[in-house]
Amino acid sequence: SKPNRKIDFGNRGKTLEDELNETNEFYLSRNLAVIHKKPVPIQVVKVDYPSRSSAVIREAYYRTASTTDYNGVWMGRYIDFEAKETKNKTSFPLQNIHSHQMEHMENIVANQGIAFLLVRFSTLNRYFLLPYQVLKSCWEDMNKGARKSISLNIFEDKGFELIPKAFPRIDYLEALEKMVHQIQS
Amino acid sequence: SKPNRKIDFGNRGKTLEDELNETNEFYLSRNLAVIHKKPVPIQVVKVDYPSRSSAVIREAYYRTASTTDYNGVWMGRYIDFEAKETKNKTSFPLQNIHSHQMEHMENIVANQGIAFLLVRFSTLNRYFLLPYQVLKSCWEDMNKGARKSISLNIFEDKGFELIPKAFPRIDYLEALEKMVHQIQS
Ligand SMILES: [Mg+2]
Ligand SMILES: [Mg+2]
Repeated sequence: SKPNRKIDFGNRGKTLEDELNETNEFYLSRNLAVIHKKPVPIQVVKVDYPSRSSAVIREAYYRTASTTDYNGVWMGRYIDFEAKETKNKTSFPLQNIHSHQMEHMENIVANQGIAFLLVRFSTLNRYFLLPYQVLKSCWEDMNKGARKSISLNIFEDKGFELIPKAFPRIDYLEALEKMVHQIQS
Repeated sequence: SKPNRKIDFGNRGKTLEDELNETNEFYLSRNLAVIHKKPVPIQVVKVDYPSRSSAVIREAYYRTASTTDYNGVWMGRYIDFEAKETKNKTSFPLQNIHSHQMEHMENIVANQGIAFLLVRFSTLNRYFLLPYQVLKSCWEDMNKGARKSISLNIFEDKGFELIPKAFPRIDYLEALEKMVHQIQS
């Protein structure tokens, strides 16, 4: 069930990426974790050199990311996650996740890293961490013909909710700690 | 001292990046580690959309990387390194490393991650892992007016040499294991 909130810290039009940047900068400044968003991979085709010291890329293309959005270190542990937002109110569409991202997270978990999905239900102003293991079972069900989305109920039952606060608004390490504790026990 | 080699596996004109890609693909296929090179960060200024489904970047600029080249997971541990090659035969020039990369590695180590430099002395066909802690002390000495390079002696004494082999040519996990064992003991 939805937890009580004394104050409702709305996202005020910020993207999830903006919110996570703010959080990650806070973690970095306090030595709580070092997590960065990976640059978008771009295939460069043509470069001009108008002067000796500068290069201008004149033709390039976005490539599909073969991994996830964010990775880094928390207490020596390797952390890896994909962050997604949806306007849906009752479920998260699995088409938002690519099969190569699933493969990447599978590899991470096989090497004892921590992989998860961080989802913002923007309309509801609710945030969840979903362990890769849960995502995987929904994904496999979908491939067997089941629903193509993860219902909010599953996030509530098997995910770890993150309650927005004043600053940093999206403080995901607390939920992460609970998640890791449960996976390890 | 330089170890004996029965067979000399030359790098045959491959860049260090090519060699590391081959190694990392091997590690991935065997579930030994998941290490990727980060995409080069590019600032996109102008994008054309010649059709609904395609985007062509028409103006963009290379940005200076604020972190290191490679990161990933090995046995649950967070791994982070910068890879550099030099044609010098007696030392590695410290100007190859930027201060923001030093800061990044400092943050990694402060969060119990494993940070190091992987150097190829191309002319010598020798490879070393140098723990961040050793790099840091050379860097600090430089800032106090000492030499602006790390001598080969320091790599031999305080680094971990990696002996090229048939396949993958650059198998750095063995040297990494020795390094981690020494740092922890
Ligand atoms: Mg994303
Ligand atoms: Mg490099």
